[in-house]
Amino acid sequence: MTYQPVQADKFSFGLWTVGWQGRDPFGDATRAPLDPVDAVRRLGELGAYGVTFHDDDLIPHSSTEAERTARVRQFRQALDSAGMTVPMATTNLFTHPVFKDGAFTANDRSVRRYALRKTMRNIDLAAELGARTYVAWGGREGSESGAAKDVRAALARLKEAFDLLGEYVTERGYDLRFALEPKPNEPRGDILLPTVGHALAFIERLERPALFGVNPEVGHEQMAGLNVPHGIAQALWAGKLYHIDLNGQSGVKYDQDLRFGAGDLRAAFWLVDLLESAGYDGPRHFDFKPPRTEGPEGVWDSAAGCMRNYLILRERAAAFRADPEVREALRVSGLDELARPTLDVGETPTALRADRAAFEDFDPERAGERGMGFERLDQLAMDHLLGVRG
Amino acid sequence: MTYQPVQADKFSFGLWTVGWQGRDPFGDATRAPLDPVDAVRRLGELGAYGVTFHDDDLIPHSSTEAERTARVRQFRQALDSAGMTVPMATTNLFTHPVFKDGAFTANDRSVRRYALRKTMRNIDLAAELGARTYVAWGGREGSESGAAKDVRAALARLKEAFDLLGEYVTERGYDLRFALEPKPNEPRGDILLPTVGHALAFIERLERPALFGVNPEVGHEQMAGLNVPHGIAQALWAGKLYHIDLNGQSGVKYDQDLRFGAGDLRAAFWLVDLLESAGYDGPRHFDFKPPRTEGPEGVWDSAAGCMRNYLILRERAAAFRADPEVREALRVSGLDELARPTLDVGETPTALRADRAAFEDFDPERAGERGMGFERLDQLAMDHLLGVRG
Amino acid sequence: MTYQPVQADKFSFGLWTVGWQGRDPFGDATRAPLDPVDAVRRLGELGAYGVTFHDDDLIPHSSTEAERTARVRQFRQALDSAGMTVPMATTNLFTHPVFKDGAFTANDRSVRRYALRKTMRNIDLAAELGARTYVAWGGREGSESGAAKDVRAALARLKEAFDLLGEYVTERGYDLRFALEPKPNEPRGDILLPTVGHALAFIERLERPALFGVNPEVGHEQMAGLNVPHGIAQALWAGKLYHIDLNGQSGVKYDQDLRFGAGDLRAAFWLVDLLESAGYDGPRHFDFKPPRTEGPEGVWDSAAGCMRNYLILRERAAAFRADPEVREALRVSGLDELARPTLDVGETPTALRADRAAFEDFDPERAGERGMGFERLDQLAMDHLLGVRG
Amino acid sequence: MTYQPVQADKFSFGLWTVGWQGRDPFGDATRAPLDPVDAVRRLGELGAYGVTFHDDDLIPHSSTEAERTARVRQFRQALDSAGMTVPMATTNLFTHPVFKDGAFTANDRSVRRYALRKTMRNIDLAAELGARTYVAWGGREGSESGAAKDVRAALARLKEAFDLLGEYVTERGYDLRFALEPKPNEPRGDILLPTVGHALAFIERLERPALFGVNPEVGHEQMAGLNVPHGIAQALWAGKLYHIDLNGQSGVKYDQDLRFGAGDLRAAFWLVDLLESAGYDGPRHFDFKPPRTEGPEGVWDSAAGCMRNYLILRERAAAFRADPEVREALRVSGLDELARPTLDVGETPTALRADRAAFEDFDPERAGERGMGFERLDQLAMDHLLGVRG
Repeated sequence: MTYQPVQADKFSFGLWTVGWQGRDPFGDATRAPLDPVDAVRRLGELGAYGVTFHDDDLIPHSSTEAERTARVRQFRQALDSAGMTVPMATTNLFTHPVFKDGAFTANDRSVRRYALRKTMRNIDLAAELGARTYVAWGGREGSESGAAKDVRAALARLKEAFDLLGEYVTERGYDLRFALEPKPNEPRGDILLPTVGHALAFIERLERPALFGVNPEVGHEQMAGLNVPHGIAQALWAGKLYHIDLNGQSGVKYDQDLRFGAGDLRAAFWLVDLLESAGYDGPRHFDFKPPRTEGPEGVWDSAAGCMRNYLILRERAAAFRADPEVREALRVSGLDELARPTLDVGETPTALRADRAAFEDFDPERAGERGMGFERLDQLAMDHLLGVRG
Repeated sequence: MTYQPVQADKFSFGLWTVGWQGRDPFGDATRAPLDPVDAVRRLGELGAYGVTFHDDDLIPHSSTEAERTARVRQFRQALDSAGMTVPMATTNLFTHPVFKDGAFTANDRSVRRYALRKTMRNIDLAAELGARTYVAWGGREGSESGAAKDVRAALARLKEAFDLLGEYVTERGYDLRFALEPKPNEPRGDILLPTVGHALAFIERLERPALFGVNPEVGHEQMAGLNVPHGIAQALWAGKLYHIDLNGQSGVKYDQDLRFGAGDLRAAFWLVDLLESAGYDGPRHFDFKPPRTEGPEGVWDSAAGCMRNYLILRERAAAFRADPEVREALRVSGLDELARPTLDVGETPTALRADRAAFEDFDPERAGERGMGFERLDQLAMDHLLGVRG
Repeated sequence: MTYQPVQADKFSFGLWTVGWQGRDPFGDATRAPLDPVDAVRRLGELGAYGVTFHDDDLIPHSSTEAERTARVRQFRQALDSAGMTVPMATTNLFTHPVFKDGAFTANDRSVRRYALRKTMRNIDLAAELGARTYVAWGGREGSESGAAKDVRAALARLKEAFDLLGEYVTERGYDLRFALEPKPNEPRGDILLPTVGHALAFIERLERPALFGVNPEVGHEQMAGLNVPHGIAQALWAGKLYHIDLNGQSGVKYDQDLRFGAGDLRAAFWLVDLLESAGYDGPRHFDFKPPRTEGPEGVWDSAAGCMRNYLILRERAAAFRADPEVREALRVSGLDELARPTLDVGETPTALRADRAAFEDFDPERAGERGMGFERLDQLAMDHLLGVRG
Repeated sequence: MTYQPVQADKFSFGLWTVGWQGRDPFGDATRAPLDPVDAVRRLGELGAYGVTFHDDDLIPHSSTEAERTARVRQFRQALDSAGMTVPMATTNLFTHPVFKDGAFTANDRSVRRYALRKTMRNIDLAAELGARTYVAWGGREGSESGAAKDVRAALARLKEAFDLLGEYVTERGYDLRFALEPKPNEPRGDILLPTVGHALAFIERLERPALFGVNPEVGHEQMAGLNVPHGIAQALWAGKLYHIDLNGQSGVKYDQDLRFGAGDLRAAFWLVDLLESAGYDGPRHFDFKPPRTEGPEGVWDSAAGCMRNYLILRERAAAFRADPEVREALRVSGLDELARPTLDVGETPTALRADRAAFEDFDPERAGERGMGFERLDQLAMDHLLGVRG
């Protein structure tokens, strides 16, 4: 196997990933800025199919209208020449000091209105460039102290913002859906909609829920110690996995944005297994940061590693699922039973109560003795992951 | 202030809390069993208004029908004599080996059916005893390894179970609502519906969502490093805080079930402030475990401490909210602005785009200079919490 | 490769691991007790070379002297017949209620004295059975609240205990060293000597530091979010890795004791690489718990998996280190430079100050531009781990 | 009580704390630079007695020799005029790209030599300004991937560096001791000497251990989920608490550097209780960051809050220790027994074995029944903390 990515793999990268200059809370930039045009070209050469951006990645905050037009044109040319698309775009509502207390939930109403306008403006550009997904990460929507944010009021403001944006894309006829990106903390002490679950729940209170799904990021869920494939599975079950950010994280700590595969490798394996099993057909988007220790070439090694690891894991997961011994082990562990409804077709509470086999004649002692065979099953998975079978 | 609880405070305790014998993963029981009748009496004397139970707390698993009847009668007498109520009940779907792989989502279908019947049976008792809330904690619904549980299938089974139970209470005409209790892990490596957010989202996919809310537990959310008042606020905002489990936890580690106030005291303060500000009128239910080091009297000291700490924090939160200096500080910090909608009444996307003050004439540099005054505000809260003002 | 363990691999298991009955904080035992004799036989068949035990694993707490003698005799026969050794033994100072507030640091002095005697008694047995290492895990030495334990006094008591035990084995002429096992929490809210570092530091204050080293457990360090290979490396650097407990853990949460390889697989890879590179020649001891979902056969699948995963990782680490491309990548990343002293032989502060090349003529801007090549190096490691090279 | 700090309280602040401009991983600076001269003046007015600095805080990295001299002179004048001292200084070995892979353990040997020279240079200035403690935080000494750092080699380099620095201050006759500051992670994925324990252990391997102690930071230990007062107690027990960094942190997440008292308030209470009980007489140094949401005045509110909270907690801890009811509760909980040696004076192993009361005649069942009274004791502490007694 060569593990060479192709366009059909739908690998995409944010401009801000390979373009990250390495500025961190304790250190200055270690790399020069990267021209978006160069980013597009190199990513295309590596096998990516798409590039994504925040408005400010492409068009620096203080650009004139003429500069803006020029930059968009150059970017579009680079995309064309590389045969790349823009599957997704998003708004930078966190870098500028104006957003220090939030954007859509800033206590300052004028900041909230500005944030909406900034977003609407970039939605126009996203639509123009053909993006089908608009990601919203509310990294500054939160607080460090208890009275600073009335969370119920803030959620009302957040709903107001997304309802307006939903109305906007509907009015404009854009073929664009929103994907909310949860994160528990950093840069705020606690961020609103901290997990996939909170975001999914919030969406149900919006005016146009169908327009909104989630964009889970591997590392963000792991920062809350959560099982990533479980959270993604709930999003899929709810029909709400509109996009995904793949990267790596070594446990509960600051946001690391390691390349995909680094960090919790077993979680990455199960995540790829899930995405592929579930037929997820959206972009495999890498939202990572090449470590600050890397020079320019290390950036591309890191980006290439993201895709390579996905392809290796995809191959291994497929082999796992295809292995007859695995299929038998899954059956022994009762996975086929789990797929079967608990109730018979049309079975009512009354019918269930009348089924003596379910309770009166059921022997819990004996049922409790059944070994589930999960360790054998998991070792088969480990063997496939490590490539020691066939 | 005496901080003496009264019935109007709506403090309730689970039989399993004061009755915990101190068995932990590394140690045997350190306390003798506590008769539910004694628990009711002592809790009543301490000022609690309600007692809650798992079926097996009241009626040991292997009881005969006659024993069952006798125990229920004694319990009822104890309640009457103490003037106590049963605001909530729940099912033990985790202790017996039969539930080792889950209850409503066990891979073994016969276990799932048994779990439903066990639950229905205890719902009957709960209704009979006047409970208005039925809590469901799915502590065994989860897995330790990736292939052992197909999470999408498991969520489908979970929905099936709750849809059936919703149908059951509806048919029977019980005045009972369900409160799902999230937990991220322990005793399973990862539990389904790991946080308040995941549970809220799940509820929206049920047939009778109005019958279902959440029962957040302070320590469970903190085991995922989440801000408890934030999660509760989202539940309140969604109209879904049907019950609450108050206790303490010292950070991301095993489930500690410390008495309320222990662990993160500042979070406890903001939680009480939120519950009281929001007019939450359900039980203040303590789900704690008196540490294994305590003898019988320590159990009651610990229980009394839960209530005492709530009352102290309630007093302090009220003083904080009533303080004119705090009100002014809140205004300076923009909390009044946050309460105000971002959009003018009826404002459309088009109207917002036409408002030059929102974008073209808005000066983000200047707006970014505004100091939010959160540190002063938070220190005022600290002063009130510590009782150094007034 | 068959990955079949042999005695030279020095794999050992605690009786309490395969013998764990599955009792957890929320559930009763799911498996029958396992006779130590059977444990020895089965482990021998699987390829282990050693078995370890707590006194109470072998001889139940309330045994008579005659029962004790009989049990030891049977155990010894089982060892002989399986060709197995007892490389290590330890004391159970945590299960019985008497130890609820600690053993060597219990506030109750009579408990401390009892704990010492219980330990001395089992040291005699350990020596008799040929053990060379005596592990001390102080799982109950800690507290849940601030005033309950004066930590400075407790450390003085802990020193007193280990000084006495050191004197004891010296007097008796036992060829036995102690290995202290750190853990941050569970079953106590906070445990004394929470990490490898704290234990290493503590040892330096003992009367006979050479008799004392550490027994790090993979999962225990990960419960504090620490990098396990880093901690083990510090123990090796200090000459203090006297024993090691291998298992798996999925991040910062309750103590999972998964089989080795489960949990953080990449950390397991680097740990095996370290142990093998460093020439660690002690037992590879598995301190895991076959999940409660497993029946009797699952227990052995789980135990076999521990050894299998070690052997796979050992093979992969060796291939990584032998790969010429890796060697070149290590050189590019400066690992050879790190191995070289910073100072010239005999270089004094004055000499360093006189070296203009070190400071006055050094160009930090240019030096800062060097790409470290860590991403490429790490991907090579990933490739070897996953078996996609050669 | 006014809680007005005075010089005798020994409160000190780093220039980099009040001078933090609010640049974080996702955002630009929100505050203008603060002149060190202004910092000294304002801190003095607030009641601090000392100011500390990194070389680069005082003298920007690219300053000429003349600029350096001028800045030091201005700083000295500001100190004199405010009546402030410099109790501690430290080196910035983390901001500049040259340190991206570490300073004393950088793989690049020339970087290691440069780091030593930069440190020696600032030690000279520290000594000149009268500092008695030199802090060393190795924030960049670590790695994000397994092969990038040979930890044993790196620890050898770290020892080499500190041995040289110890020789340097000895040769120069400086009255200066080093305090190593541990941190588990951020800005590196894993940092060497991640906790107080690891640093204490490392010190014992240095050539001049007496010259080296630790500078624990509250939030750094909490980032590993550790109990801060426990770690500080071990440092005190070892005679190694040479300095301390007080701040706040809300659990296991990114480094928050909240003002002291924020975050885990109960841990702060026990920490103050410990420092005061133990007679720690070094500076109470605040290493915090006024949140990025604050304007210039918020910075001073935040700084003032650090000191105010310390004074409130000091008052409360003293009242707790003086309360006769607390003293009795401590006795009931056995704290006096813990203070008493386990062994009689001169008691040998043989003598202990001969004491039948310790084992043969000891009744563990009965001893296990003793209630420790910790809940009552802890509630008394809570009452004092909250100011509801006396």
